[in-house]
Parts: sequence; structure tokens; C-alpha cells
Amino acid sequence: MDDSVRQHKYVLSEDQMPTTWYNVIADLPSPPPPPLHPGRLDPVGPDDLLPLFPMDLIMQEVTTDRYVEIPGGVLDVYRQWRPSPLFRAHRLEKLLGTPARIYYKYEGVSPAGSHKPNTAVPQAYYNKKDGTKKLTTETGAGQWGTALAFACALYDLECEVWQVGASYDAKPYRRMMIETFGGTVHRSPSNLTAVGRMLAEDPRNWSGSLGIAISEAVEVAAMDPSARYALGSVLNHVLLHQTVIGEEALLQLQMAGDTPTHIVGCTGGGSNFAGLSFPFLREKLAGRINPQITAVEPASCPSLTRGVYAYDFGDTAGMTPLLKMHTLGHDFVPDPIHAGGLRYHGMAPLISHVYELGLMDAVAIPQTECFSAALKFARTEGIVPAPEPTHALAQAIRLANQAKETGEETVILTALCGHGHFDLAAYSEYLAGSMVDEDVTADRFEVAMAGIPQIG
Amino acid sequence: MDDSVRQHKYVLSEDQMPTTWYNVIADLPSPPPPPLHPGRLDPVGPDDLLPLFPMDLIMQEVTTDRYVEIPGGVLDVYRQWRPSPLFRAHRLEKLLGTPARIYYKYEGVSPAGSHKPNTAVPQAYYNKKDGTKKLTTETGAGQWGTALAFACALYDLECEVWQVGASYDAKPYRRMMIETFGGTVHRSPSNLTAVGRMLAEDPRNWSGSLGIAISEAVEVAAMDPSARYALGSVLNHVLLHQTVIGEEALLQLQMAGDTPTHIVGCTGGGSNFAGLSFPFLREKLAGRINPQITAVEPASCPSLTRGVYAYDFGDTAGMTPLLKMHTLGHDFVPDPIHAGGLRYHGMAPLISHVYELGLMDAVAIPQTECFSAALKFARTEGIVPAPEPTHALAQAIRLANQAKETGEETVILTALCGHGHFDLAAYSEYLAGSMVDEDVTADRFEVAMAGIPQIG
Repeated sequence: MDDSVRQHKYVLSEDQMPTTWYNVIADLPSPPPPPLHPGRLDPVGPDDLLPLFPMDLIMQEVTTDRYVEIPGGVLDVYRQWRPSPLFRAHRLEKLLGTPARIYYKYEGVSPAGSHKPNTAVPQAYYNKKDGTKKLTTETGAGQWGTALAFACALYDLECEVWQVGASYDAKPYRRMMIETFGGTVHRSPSNLTAVGRMLAEDPRNWSGSLGIAISEAVEVAAMDPSARYALGSVLNHVLLHQTVIGEEALLQLQMAGDTPTHIVGCTGGGSNFAGLSFPFLREKLAGRINPQITAVEPASCPSLTRGVYAYDFGDTAGMTPLLKMHTLGHDFVPDPIHAGGLRYHGMAPLISHVYELGLMDAVAIPQTECFSAALKFARTEGIVPAPEPTHALAQAIRLANQAKETGEETVILTALCGHGHFDLAAYSEYLAGSMVDEDVTADRFEVAMAGIPQIG
Repeated sequence: MDDSVRQHKYVLSEDQMPTTWYNVIADLPSPPPPPLHPGRLDPVGPDDLLPLFPMDLIMQEVTTDRYVEIPGGVLDVYRQWRPSPLFRAHRLEKLLGTPARIYYKYEGVSPAGSHKPNTAVPQAYYNKKDGTKKLTTETGAGQWGTALAFACALYDLECEVWQVGASYDAKPYRRMMIETFGGTVHRSPSNLTAVGRMLAEDPRNWSGSLGIAISEAVEVAAMDPSARYALGSVLNHVLLHQTVIGEEALLQLQMAGDTPTHIVGCTGGGSNFAGLSFPFLREKLAGRINPQITAVEPASCPSLTRGVYAYDFGDTAGMTPLLKMHTLGHDFVPDPIHAGGLRYHGMAPLISHVYELGLMDAVAIPQTECFSAALKFARTEGIVPAPEPTHALAQAIRLANQAKETGEETVILTALCGHGHFDLAAYSEYLAGSMVDEDVTADRFEVAMAGIPQIG
């Protein structure tokens, strides 16, 4: 028998776990443009954000420090599943017949099955410390809602989740998992909020979107002094918390004796991509390595590749600060693809800024190519990916196939940010041959972009 | 803030991973009675088993060697998720207010999400080595089928699975996961086999049972010279492969500086329980430790606590060898509880023998108590257990509550043999208050036991 089943796992000891989060702003040639108050149109200050976030998180949102210390109480929880493993995908490489070496950092080992607890835990921690009783949030596919419900269970906080309607209907198991952790889930748009009732008047909103669910969760938190809001992506402090992924992967690639030529991550709001790539971007800016860094977005929701760079609202109802970002328009409702976690109209302002600085690339891939890649991956590596990281796998396989043509010894690093245990209906649909690609005709995007506010 | 979120994880390095499986037969005061040929009623020989198993596995079935070397090719695959973590359940202890220390060995980190790949991988490995083209098997909840489909994908073997009807209907995601790994799933009883067609004539069989599914898988393997059969529990070689769990846990408890007073595992066919407890039983027989070892079975299928110790068939149709075991009768169809993996009429002959020797205890627990325990566990430890190990958790919590009364510093070790990501409908039912306990009236059991063959 040959050694085709061989696979390498690179494991760090707990004392090699990062004790700081990395803030890429400290190393960029210019800072990202500030968020603007939606009424005054001037930069928001900490006081504007206090109804929604505790001061510790607000300070992390605006800090220019290169490193932020991870509290001991957060490290105690991280240790349940961190450091997460890095795998070399020998079996996939063999199937592809590529000279490329493919590594994947696997975040599905967390209790919620994705990278989201990396930020859910510190957000719950700082809120508990500040006396918050309840956290409200939105969720798409449900990964973020699950992670926050898990974190709230640990700190004895109430957790109330507005789930995007399309995902609520298609993925009941995620809702059940949130409820098992003690959280409450509402289908969004709901009739529990003024904004939900208003938006539900337009049938195009019935399938919901992250933008709508955010509006609802923000409204409830803003009205209740004992409640605050938690966001699963987009904002600087969320991206900051996810950098433990890249910091660990840097050490693990050193263990493997390899240097990445390509870093590939899927992007919805951008937290998984930033978490993986920013520590490598630091090394790239310092001239120590030179990987090509590529964000992979779904063809249905291509904020980087087809959106505009402009100030826009983070939510559909226009209740949040204005964020300078690549956006498809705050009332854009993407096709209900299986990767519910990538259905967000905007890209994180920090990633948008890095993209404008020319420090990274982006590509959009339709979902059938993603599931084709995922099936190859599952049958060789033995892990069924969530629909979101199938986008990164599809790009990794494109690069590996290119390497096969050119003979180059490409070294690809990607993040497998979650498992697909709650997404098997999508695999079933793909296997039955009934999965379709998204509608990517131009007017689908142009209508929503016409509604972006004209600022600056 | 207090340290209530603190938890301890005990991790072994890869070079501490066991390189041998442990065979408890070598240390027992007497050997277990041999399996008998169903026609001749004399002990089966290797030749009788060759249509179903490769010689390597048959030799492991009958060996009296204390240790069996794990092939390098199997270790290569084990390393993807092994050594698995041992956790101290600080948060659960705190919730219970118990002086007991509770440890759990977590096997849900495997690609299939349970302990089953520990034996699926070597079974596929030895079959591949022997030229087998296809493996057939049964599955209850689907954990075993998933594990075998994963292992078959790695070794490029066909995998055909008969799934117990009740689980097939209630848990479509497990079937989809098997299909994602490339396996084929049939609802059992099926019309693809003579035995399936025959048994389906009685409506009581429509919900299926492991015994029926085994009959179907064995029939197909026996008729096809290029196919063999793989069993997920019960047989000696399957229990042998699972001993990596207990061997690792022994080392991990040493790291923790603790000695178990109680070892608790759930039992269906018995492989998880044996895998956890047999290495500790070796230490107990050698006089080095003295834990109480307890098997926990579902009230619906109490083979140890309410069955008889007799020769009986492993399957419903009477195609397998006769096994001396605690049995409820080979045509017993248990209530369709959520713990589909525990719905087997018999107990592994080796565990039955150990039980008869007085080296372990057994208890049966109804499912609502199990889910009550599981919810406490999920909301403190952050992991949603599969329905099967909720039985062990319920007993662990009983022991922890006893310790609270007596003040004893009990040290409880259990195995969390799988996650419940595919079982959330059961949690939802429990949370809604609509879960009912099983029917445990005596005549339910007595009818099937009347059909046990009268031998010896």
C-alpha cells in the first residue's frame, strides 16, 4: 500500500498560543477613513458608540497600538480549542496532481464549529465586565449566532439573535443549536422591531439580509439600557480578535519549514480573511515574505470586485454609523446562496482600505464551482467544509491547477473557517445536480448601488 | 470577574499516541466463550468468517496477545485528530456545586464527529490491503456509516450502508454526510435484499433496527466475492481498535495528577465503553487503581440490566454466528429513542463476559434524564453531545450529586464519544417539553427474549 493517506498536522503547544491580538493599522502607510455619524456626518466619537458597545471594545475599535493584550479570562476560554491545527492537504494535492503545497488552518474545531468564537468570547467577556445583561445580534447562516450564544452561556448573559429569513428557513439546525446554548432566535425581518415591520412591507425583503437583521438587533439594543449589541464581522475590533488565526498559522508554517506564496481567504464581512491574512501582511510590509493575498467573495455578493468604495450604512435601515467601504448598497439583497455568512452588502472598512492601498487582490466565484471544490476536499481530507470556505478552496484549487501547468512549487495557505455539518442540504442539492449559480447580471447590482448616500 | 470560565484541556503530543491496541482478553481470569456456527453449533473457525472479513481482522478477533501493533498507515490517519483531548469539566462541576472532579475524553474531534473512525480506518485499511473493492455495513444514528464512508473515501473503497429506518427518516443530515463522503445509503428494511423484503412484511419492523440492518449488509457482502462486511461495534476486533481512547486517557489523567474512582461509558454494542474502560480495567486487574466501572444503557434497550446471558444471533435474520452475550432477543425492536446508536439488542460478548466476571456494573437511564444532563453540559462546557453519550453524562451527574451529599472527592472519567450536530431535533423536542421516556414495561422485553435460541 502506498502512503496516499498520509497527512500532516502542525500543532502548537498551549504556551505557543498568541497572547496578543495584532492591529494592522499600526503598520499601514495611512489609517483607514473614520466612521461618520449618520446624522451629523462628522467622525463618530466613543460616546456615540456607548449605547451599543462597552468602552473596552470601543477603545479596541479605534486603537493604533500594534498589539492588544488578550485578557487571561479570554485565553482561558480560547484554550478549549486553541491553538487550532494547521494541516497540509497531501491527499488533495495528490488528487489534483499538483506540485503546489496546500495548507489549511482549521477553525471548525471550536465549540461553535467556526472561527466566530474567537471574537464572540472577548465580546461577551468585555460586556460582562461592563455589567451588560443581554447581547443582541444578527446572524446569517447561523455561525455567528451560535458562537455568541456559546459565549453568552459561559458568562451568563442573555442572547437574542435575529437570523436572516432565508437561512432561518433553510437551516433549522443552527437555530436549534443556538437554543440549545440558551439563546433566543427570531426570523428576520421580524415584527418585534419598528424597522422589521417597515421593511417587511416590501416582499423583496422577506428572505432577509444581514443588513436587515443588523438593523433589528441594533434597534433592540439601543432601546434597552441593560442590553448591548455584538457584531460578528466588519468592525476593526472584530477583525482584531480574529488575528489569532494568522498568528498561529505563521508559527505553524515555520514548523512546516514553508513560506506561503499565496494566502487565500473567503470574505463576507471580512473577519475570517483579516484574521488569517493580517499577520502575514505585517510580515509582507516588513519585507520578510511576499505572498499574494487574495480575498474570495461569492459571485452573488461581490462587494470588492463589483461594488464601489464609498461611505455607506452598515445596515439596511441606516441606523449605524456610515462606514467607508466597498459596498453594493445598504439595501442590496443578495441571491439566497448557501454561503449565508457571505451575504453582506459591504466589506470591512479595514479590508477595503487595504484593498485600496493595493496590498491584496480579490476574486468572485460562483457557488457550483465552490461546491465542486468542496466535494474534492471532503473526499480527500475527510472534513466537510461550510459553504463559506468552499470559496477559498475553489480559489486554492484554481491556483493548484495553475501550478500544475507551470510546474511552479506554489505554497498556498487558506483558512477552513468552519465545518459544514449544518449545511449538508446544500451538498445534497449539489450531488443531485440541482444547484444553480447566482444571478450576476449588472442591473441586479446597479439598482442597489444607486441608493448609496452621496458623501464627501 | 471570577474564573468560572476556566477549563482544563490535557493534550498529548503525537509521539505520546499509543502505537498498540490493547487486548483485555490477555488479562482476564478466563477467556470469553467462543462464537458458534449458526448451523453446526460448534465454534466458528477463521474459514467461516473469510467471506465477511479479511484474515488480518479475523486474527485480531481471536488473538490472545496482550498488545496488537497499529500499522503505520493507520497511525498516519489517526494523527489527523488523535491524540484527542481530555477535558476537566470545571464549569459543569461549578454548576452542580459538587466536590467531584469530572473529566471527559472528547472523541467528537474526529472527521466523522465520533469515536467510530478509530475502527473504521483500520477496517478499511486491512480490507484495502486484502483486495476488497466494497464494504457493506449497517448504521443506526449514522455515526458508524459516516465513519466508514470517510475511511472508504481515503482508501478508494466503495461503501454501501443500510441505515435503520427510524434514523434514516429522522436524521437526513447523517445520510447526506455519508453521501458527501461518497457512500451510498439505503433505508432498512430495504427491498434490495431477500431478508429485507421478508422482514418488511411485518409492520413492527418498518422502523428498523440495527439487527435488521446487519442482516441486510451481511447478505449483500456474502453474495459478492469482491465485497466484505464491516461492523461498527460488538466484535472483539472492533473493541480492540477503540482502546486508543482509554490508553490516551490513562496518560492524560496522569498529566492531570488524578486517579479515577469512577469510569462511566454509554453502551450500545459496547465499543465506546470498552475503548474507554479496558485499559483502566488492565490497571485495576493489576492492582494499581481501583475505579468502579459502569456501563450506562438506555432504558429502551437494557441488554445488560434486563437481558439474559445466552447464545443469540447478532442480527435479526439469524445469519451471523451465535454470540454468547447479554441479549434482549435478536428480533427485539427497541423504541425509536434519539440515541439510535444504542438501539442494539445485544451487548458485545467481551463486555458481557467482563460483566459476568463481576468486574463492572451497569445501569439503565431513560432519555429525558439524559437530555436534561446534556443541556447542563452544553451550556457549561460548550459542546453539544450526541444522544448516546448523554447517557454517560446523566450517570456522571448522578455520581457528582452523590459526591455533593457525601462530600467525597469522587474522580469521574467519562467519554464524550461524539457531538450532537446531527441530533439537534432531539434537543429541540426536549426544549419544547415534548420528549417522552421509553416504554419499559416487562412484557415488551419478554416477548423478544422468548425467541432466543436454546443452546448449551
